[in-house]
Amino acid sequence: LPASSFLELPPRQGLTHVLDKGLGLTATRELLDAAGDYVDIVKLGWGTSYVLQNLDAKLDLLRSYGKPVVPGGTFVEAVYVRGKLDEYKSWLQQHGFTHVEISDGTVDMPRERKLELVADFARDFTVLSEVGSKDPSVELDADQWTSWLREELDAGAWKVVTEAREGATSGIFAADGSMRTSVITDVAAEVGTEHVIFEAPTKASQAWFIKELGPNVHLGNIAPEDVIPLETLRLGLRSDTLKEVLGDPAPTS
Amino acid sequence: LPASSFLELPPRQGLTHVLDKGLGLTATRELLDAAGDYVDIVKLGWGTSYVLQNLDAKLDLLRSYGKPVVPGGTFVEAVYVRGKLDEYKSWLQQHGFTHVEISDGTVDMPRERKLELVADFARDFTVLSEVGSKDPSVELDADQWTSWLREELDAGAWKVVTEAREGATSGIFAADGSMRTSVITDVAAEVGTEHVIFEAPTKASQAWFIKELGPNVHLGNIAPEDVIPLETLRLGLRSDTLKEVLGDPAPTS
Amino acid sequence: LPASSFLELPPRQGLTHVLDKGLGLTATRELLDAAGDYVDIVKLGWGTSYVLQNLDAKLDLLRSYGKPVVPGGTFVEAVYVRGKLDEYKSWLQQHGFTHVEISDGTVDMPRERKLELVADFARDFTVLSEVGSKDPSVELDADQWTSWLREELDAGAWKVVTEAREGATSGIFAADGSMRTSVITDVAAEVGTEHVIFEAPTKASQAWFIKELGPNVHLGNIAPEDVIPLETLRLGLRSDTLKEVLGDPAPTS
Repeated sequence: LPASSFLELPPRQGLTHVLDKGLGLTATRELLDAAGDYVDIVKLGWGTSYVLQNLDAKLDLLRSYGKPVVPGGTFVEAVYVRGKLDEYKSWLQQHGFTHVEISDGTVDMPRERKLELVADFARDFTVLSEVGSKDPSVELDADQWTSWLREELDAGAWKVVTEAREGATSGIFAADGSMRTSVITDVAAEVGTEHVIFEAPTKASQAWFIKELGPNVHLGNIAPEDVIPLETLRLGLRSDTLKEVLGDPAPTS
Repeated sequence: LPASSFLELPPRQGLTHVLDKGLGLTATRELLDAAGDYVDIVKLGWGTSYVLQNLDAKLDLLRSYGKPVVPGGTFVEAVYVRGKLDEYKSWLQQHGFTHVEISDGTVDMPRERKLELVADFARDFTVLSEVGSKDPSVELDADQWTSWLREELDAGAWKVVTEAREGATSGIFAADGSMRTSVITDVAAEVGTEHVIFEAPTKASQAWFIKELGPNVHLGNIAPEDVIPLETLRLGLRSDTLKEVLGDPAPTS
Repeated sequence: LPASSFLELPPRQGLTHVLDKGLGLTATRELLDAAGDYVDIVKLGWGTSYVLQNLDAKLDLLRSYGKPVVPGGTFVEAVYVRGKLDEYKSWLQQHGFTHVEISDGTVDMPRERKLELVADFARDFTVLSEVGSKDPSVELDADQWTSWLREELDAGAWKVVTEAREGATSGIFAADGSMRTSVITDVAAEVGTEHVIFEAPTKASQAWFIKELGPNVHLGNIAPEDVIPLETLRLGLRSDTLKEVLGDPAPTS
């Protein structure tokens, strides 16, 4: 917190998981200088890490700020359908990745195979395991979400991630961008919010989660330019949550 | 204007009020290097100035380019409901702010209290006073807008700002993002465009104001990446205003 | 391609034509450091090159990376209606431009005059010639597109560009942002995709072109921040094209 924290706000706790789709080195450095305390983990979206021409310089930079980096789940899926999982593991280790995301939002992957992958990668990496289809027509019910999230946590995932895409159109969002609110609150209650990162790529969804699940909810797919705005939402310093966060001065984690 | 201004366009005059929601130092510097002549005042949106970890470095940079900086109005509202106005003033002075925005778009604030605040802050700061609710269901009529804007100017505001939010969904915009055009032209005629900064966060609204009120209208909540595009709209160098600005070669201020 | 290209993907070929609306020097440099292999030509959108305060520094930078730069077509139209074409040519040469875009999307320009302009500029510059109105109500049919594109190629254009605007609302897009798909495939077949740059400012349109016309289709009006995401679409490393690009391991140019 800044030196002169005259508003005496409670300390922040919820994870902010940032979606990076190719941010430059200087832009990355100055995000961390301005708001590094509010960045908990950086995802290099889908297969962007594979095409970045200066990947190692970027990873070095993020590591120098102590930020874990995770390649996006769709990259694993592209690897999986090509039968290159061993090569992918070597690539991860060669570049010093400590975290990995496992998802099955695009390709067909039997449940038991996904759980095997989570367990297998969990031996060498911290695993974020994502549940939910990128196909907007697929709508899981709360029981399905809950049982799948639990299975993947049991298989060794550090956190489970609920799918929303960059555009908030699938998974916990309906195809029209509206939120599937009762499903989310049920899942949160059953699985425990501390284990879940909810993808929330829009201001409306971020505000909804903060109002419904508290300022310390773990939120994912946050655009770099929204890290500071999200922090103000968590603290009640933006119109969308000003009244609600004020009414709850000591939010629980 | 660039050295070889072969189009012999009229000099610019309207204020461009930029909404900064956490731009990094290098990005700020290079905005000013590329387009500093078109940046008249920078607003650090809502409570972002409170969470920025390098606020003083940013303020120093903006001052070195001679640009006034103003924290957003929602920050004052969050301070007001917590009863910390004196602490806020100290904070403003400690960081060397010369401008302040007073608004009541989110919290309930009696009219007389708002006018007192404007008058009070106007003793030590240049005040931008914002009128309009952030609640999309609140729609003021032209008489209401006009009388409130005049009252706040009389109370000591340097400029009055008409609310639009970052997303152009409230105040002078209807909830669906369309513009409340007859209200705006009536207000502009009554209050005088030189006293008003119209929030215009979208290209469509910027083009509308330029076509309706002239290239030198004061426009606010301009995203940093839209400063150069807005300048081309003012000069008739983008499709949206090419014909209208051409037809009015010597726009008045 | 990165050193450890374990996926053994085919080499990229399609042109990526980037729309720059005022990117700073550092941001430009780090785009090229991270993704310069995927940037083939940079357009300084509409009249932005005229208002940039550090135009020559920017041009020097882009040239140092070997990237051709082209001012946007609307700039030529603003020049044309003011009768300043000779001054414009001098300005282009003074700043060392080698490429120019000729369009008639906003102003009225007789067909024969446009073809004269293309032929005239083609003597001193590499010409990108744009077809399609910026007025969403104007919808050309496939025969009209095809004959105009051919005429402009015959007049000396290096490539023809199909209009979409930054917001994907006109030209090859209908006013509601949907794509005029049968027109596009007909035009592509008739004119030959190697001669056409299709403006595709949205992820949905980029994915559509890649799925319909192959990964090596020339795409234009790509935002700088979408250069890396587009490359992943071309390579099948993002959900939207993962299955289609996989099914076509050796895309043709």
